[in-house]
Amino acid sequence: MVNNTDIPTAAILVIGDEILSGRTKDKNVGFIADRLTELGIDLKEVRIISDEQPAIVSGLNALRAAYTYVFTTGGIGPTHDDITADSVAAAFGVTIDIDQRAVDVMLERYEKADLTESRLRMARIPAGAELIANPVSKAPGFQIGNVFVMAGVPNIMQAMMDDVSTRLKGGQKMLSLAIEAGMGEGMVAKPLAELQLEYPDVSLGSYPYMRDGKFQTSLVLRCRDEERLNLVAEKLADIVTELQKSNAD
Amino acid sequence: MVNNTDIPTAAILVIGDEILSGRTKDKNVGFIADRLTELGIDLKEVRIISDEQPAIVSGLNALRAAYTYVFTTGGIGPTHDDITADSVAAAFGVTIDIDQRAVDVMLERYEKADLTESRLRMARIPAGAELIANPVSKAPGFQIGNVFVMAGVPNIMQAMMDDVSTRLKGGQKMLSLAIEAGMGEGMVAKPLAELQLEYPDVSLGSYPYMRDGKFQTSLVLRCRDEERLNLVAEKLADIVTELQKSNAD
Repeated sequence: MVNNTDIPTAAILVIGDEILSGRTKDKNVGFIADRLTELGIDLKEVRIISDEQPAIVSGLNALRAAYTYVFTTGGIGPTHDDITADSVAAAFGVTIDIDQRAVDVMLERYEKADLTESRLRMARIPAGAELIANPVSKAPGFQIGNVFVMAGVPNIMQAMMDDVSTRLKGGQKMLSLAIEAGMGEGMVAKPLAELQLEYPDVSLGSYPYMRDGKFQTSLVLRCRDEERLNLVAEKLADIVTELQKSNAD
Repeated sequence: MVNNTDIPTAAILVIGDEILSGRTKDKNVGFIADRLTELGIDLKEVRIISDEQPAIVSGLNALRAAYTYVFTTGGIGPTHDDITADSVAAAFGVTIDIDQRAVDVMLERYEKADLTESRLRMARIPAGAELIANPVSKAPGFQIGNVFVMAGVPNIMQAMMDDVSTRLKGGQKMLSLAIEAGMGEGMVAKPLAELQLEYPDVSLGSYPYMRDGKFQTSLVLRCRDEERLNLVAEKLADIVTELQKSNAD
């Protein structure tokens, strides 16, 4: 048996008015969710909030107290509406100033004369934080405590996540198998619930979708123990085969 | 001037392990965000949580106390992992049982003999709730207080949102204009910040993105007053034109 108390947990805090207005459609949650699943870390909560310091501070403090890791995206650029670094410093109660390590990496891209006051905003790092590498455009993210602060532009965030991933302690990987029921979920609901009662250690999920105007259902089994997963998957496959036969009759 | 205290606010609660595991990429937040912007309602927060009753109850109670409207998606199907309706009833402290109005609309699709115990789970509605019409597959959503409970399957959620929209009191619409800067945001950050200081009633956002390996920036102006919006947009367009000229020199 896998001891679930050993499984690290995580939350994502997406900071961005442009997501809440609908103008930009978020692509970062799905990417981070996939990565965490690969690493054996349970993503438990996502919050999307506006570019307002009180919202960032209270959201971040709630999440960092509740989960092993917190990932933020957005609000670390050079413009006046980029207030994530200052808000994170406020949440941790530490000072923030231009960080020489950040200036040094930015000098790999910019001439010294081009490091304007605006661009130097991107070198403002809370005291005690470690930098997160940004191979795309140099201006770094940072880690403070269990919080990883990353860019909102998807390809920069993804590059930062490569650096971040090396610092995360993964748990035993969650394994999953999917079985296509070939019918609406109302047809399979009862035997599925009975199977779940019999094997509470394997999580059984049912995800309806429509294809060509007909309801279909993906049945997803999740468990960290491969033997148990395979055992229950076989039983579920038998149930589905039987149901398909009786539907065809 | 527009009085912002008259602007209704909203939150979305996405209920779904499949989003948190990365298996399914959410499409509902963007759709609801767009619709609320059209209606003049400010979406202030989104939370994505797992299919666990304590998470649903505490998330819902936090959001419904803080915002004018709350929209939930997911977890109202016929299977054992569909626990949203029961969790909403628990959050409101009301009973829940099979609702004859819901049974009646489901009989428009199903023969009475086909309304199995599993399918009748979809007719469980908290006491005091009003139904939300589902023209796609009949099993209804419901409204209780300021909370609108909808399906997770995108085309069903979208159809339900048509019914829901008629019940929402919109505010004065947020208007927006976008100007393409044609340069990275570091180049425009300083004059943009100065313009924001001069016109605090028009929100100026700066959204970087990459195209063909080069940084580009969308500058977005948002205001509920059309005259003020146009005034500041003209000033910003002039600033951008000047910057482009001096870059070209």
